[in-house]
Amino acid sequence: MDYIVSAPGKAILHGEHAVVHGKAALAVSLNLRTYLRLKASTTGKVYLNLPNIDAFLCWDLAELKQLTPYTCGKKKEVKHLDAELVRRLREFVGVTNENLDTCNMATLAFLYIYLSLFGSEELPSLTVSVWSELPTGAGLGSSAAYSVCLAAALLCASGAIPTPLWDPTAGWCQEDLELINSWAFQGEMIIHGNPSGVDNAVGTWGGMLRFLAGKIIPLGRVPLLRILLTNTKIPRSTKVLVAGVKDRINKFPSIITPVLDSVDAISCTCEKVLSEMTCEPITGEHYNILEELIDINQHHLNVMGVGHPALDTLCRVTLTRGLHSKLTGAGGGGCGITLLRPGNDETLAQERSFGVQVLLCHRLSSPIS
Amino acid sequence: MDYIVSAPGKAILHGEHAVVHGKAALAVSLNLRTYLRLKASTTGKVYLNLPNIDAFLCWDLAELKQLTPYTCGKKKEVKHLDAELVRRLREFVGVTNENLDTCNMATLAFLYIYLSLFGSEELPSLTVSVWSELPTGAGLGSSAAYSVCLAAALLCASGAIPTPLWDPTAGWCQEDLELINSWAFQGEMIIHGNPSGVDNAVGTWGGMLRFLAGKIIPLGRVPLLRILLTNTKIPRSTKVLVAGVKDRINKFPSIITPVLDSVDAISCTCEKVLSEMTCEPITGEHYNILEELIDINQHHLNVMGVGHPALDTLCRVTLTRGLHSKLTGAGGGGCGITLLRPGNDETLAQERSFGVQVLLCHRLSSPIS
Repeated sequence: MDYIVSAPGKAILHGEHAVVHGKAALAVSLNLRTYLRLKASTTGKVYLNLPNIDAFLCWDLAELKQLTPYTCGKKKEVKHLDAELVRRLREFVGVTNENLDTCNMATLAFLYIYLSLFGSEELPSLTVSVWSELPTGAGLGSSAAYSVCLAAALLCASGAIPTPLWDPTAGWCQEDLELINSWAFQGEMIIHGNPSGVDNAVGTWGGMLRFLAGKIIPLGRVPLLRILLTNTKIPRSTKVLVAGVKDRINKFPSIITPVLDSVDAISCTCEKVLSEMTCEPITGEHYNILEELIDINQHHLNVMGVGHPALDTLCRVTLTRGLHSKLTGAGGGGCGITLLRPGNDETLAQERSFGVQVLLCHRLSSPIS
Repeated sequence: MDYIVSAPGKAILHGEHAVVHGKAALAVSLNLRTYLRLKASTTGKVYLNLPNIDAFLCWDLAELKQLTPYTCGKKKEVKHLDAELVRRLREFVGVTNENLDTCNMATLAFLYIYLSLFGSEELPSLTVSVWSELPTGAGLGSSAAYSVCLAAALLCASGAIPTPLWDPTAGWCQEDLELINSWAFQGEMIIHGNPSGVDNAVGTWGGMLRFLAGKIIPLGRVPLLRILLTNTKIPRSTKVLVAGVKDRINKFPSIITPVLDSVDAISCTCEKVLSEMTCEPITGEHYNILEELIDINQHHLNVMGVGHPALDTLCRVTLTRGLHSKLTGAGGGGCGITLLRPGNDETLAQERSFGVQVLLCHRLSSPIS
C-alpha cells in the first residue's frame, strides 16, 4: 500500500461576508494543491511528516490504541464530532487553550480521523507525508485540502473506498466523494471550530461551487479561468472581520442591507456568465462583465469595512495594466485575485512591486485525485 | 437705485445621480457667492458687466424695445419659458447652435428676465455688474447663483418685491423668495435646458435642501459644517455621465438598483444626523457617522461608474490626514468635498499636491441677501 492523493485549494470569487448573511457565494478550486503520500509499514508505528511546517511526528501503535476505548470505526458518512475522542486527543497532544498552532491542529485532525476509522480494529502501521503548494492562514483552504487528503487516504487504507488506480481519468464515485467530504469536514471542525463546509467541498469536488443558506451546490461545467493570486501577507482575524461587518449592518441597516443584496446579484450574474462561457464562444464582452463584477464587488467589500490599503494598492497597480482585482475571502489583508484574460502575459506573475507580493499565476483546477 | 444682492453656490452632500432615479439628494449652500450690483441711470442704455468672463455688454433701450412686441411683464411666479421670446433673443444675440458659450448663456438669461419683467412698460436704463467667487462649469451652481441674483435685483427694480434694506438681518418674505426662485428657474432653463431646480432653490434659500421626486424641501436648522472643496479641473459632461449610470442600471439592474437604495438611505441618515447636531451637543460620533457615510457613498459612486482617478487620489491623500472625501455633483472629474472636523487645521486648504488642486476652505452659508 503506497499511494499519493492530492486536493486543491480554493478562492472565493464572489460573496465572501455576504454568505454569512444568507446570500450566495461562489468558490472555485485553484491549481495550488496539497499532496499526501500514504505508505503501509510493519514498524508498529505511525509517522506523520509535515515538511511545510517542519513537523515530523511519530507514535507507537500501543499508545494510540489506548485512546480508543469506545466504539469507533465509523466508516459511514458522519455529521458530528465525537466530543469525547476530541477531549482525549487534546489531552494526549497536550493542548489546553483554544488557539492551537498549525502543528497541533494538523496532529489532532490526523489522529481523529485515523482513530475514528481504525479504532475498532487493528491499528495499521503507516507513514503519512503531506506537502502543499498552499500557504497556511491565507484563506486559500489549505487546512481543508489537508483534511480532504487525510480523509481520502485513510478511507482508502481502511477499505471503505477503492484505492487510487494511478489513472488520472478514473475517480471515485459520487458516494465515495461524499464520504471523503464528510470526513474532511470532521477535520475542518477540529481545526476551525465552526467551518462553513465550502472549503472541504471545493477540495473534494474541485471546479466551482455555489454556497447558499448552508447548502453547497457543485456547479456543472465552468470555463478555465486564469487568476493571478496575490498574498498581501497582512495578518488578520476572520472572526474580527466577520464581527465588524455584522456591527456595520446593525449600525446602518438600511444602507448596508441593499449592498448585500447587490453582492448576491453579483454572484448570480457571475455564475450565469461563467455558464454562458462554457456553451457559447467566449468573447471579450464575457470578460468585460466579469471585470465589472470584480470592480463592483471590491467597492462593496470596502463599504462593508473589510478592505485594506494593501488591497487598494493591488487594485490600483493591476488596473494600470488593465487588470481588475478584488480581495478574496475574509479581507482586511489576506489574498487578492486578479482576473487574467487569455492574452495577458504570465510574466506579470513575476512582478514584485508596491509592497504587494505576487504569489502564483494559476488555473482553476481538477478535484482531488 | 443702487444696491448689491448676492447668492451662494451649492454642493451636493449625498444623492447625486441617485436623484435622477427617484432617490433623495441633499444639497447645501456654500459660502462661495455671486454678487450683483444694480444701478439705475439715465443713459438710455443697459450695461451688463461680467468681469469674471471678461464680458462687458451694452444695448440701446430702443433696440431692446423691439424685442418685446408681445405682452410681457409677468411679475408673478412663472413655470414655463416664453418660447417666442427665447427664439427672438437667440436671433438677437446671434446664437444658432445648441452649445452656448458662457457669455451667450449669461446674456440670454439676463435679457430674458429683464424684458419679461419690463417689456410691458418703459424699459429702464440700468448698469448691472456681476462677479463671483464660484468657478463656472464645476458643478457648484454658479449659473444658478447668477440667475438668482438677476431675478432678485430685477424684481426689486420692477417694484415686484421690496429693495434690500442694507440690514443683513432683514430679508424677503417667503412669497418674495418664491417669486425670486421661480424667475431664477427661468434663467436656469435658458442656460441648462432641463435643470432640476435644486441649484436655484439653494441659491435662493441657502442652508440645506432635500430634493426628492422633483420636490424641493428646504430643511430647518442645519449645523455649520466646514468642507474642503477641491476642483480636480477634469472636464466632463454631466449629460454623458448621467447616461452612463442609466446604461449601467439597464445592464445590471439587480446589482445597481440596491446601490441606489443604499444611497437613498445614506441621504436620510445624513439628514437625521445633521438634524441631531443642531439640537444636541455635537460629538465626535456625529462626525464619525458623517465620515462613514461619505466613504460609503464614494464607493457607491464608483460602482455607478462616475469616479475618476483624480477623485481617488483626493480620497487617498485626504485620508492620510484622517479626512474623508467624496465627489460632489456629476463626478467623472469636477469637484470633491472633504469634511473637516472643528479641530482640523485650515492651512490644509493651502496644500497643492498629487495633482489635485485645493480651492477654498469654506463654511455653509446664508441665503441670498
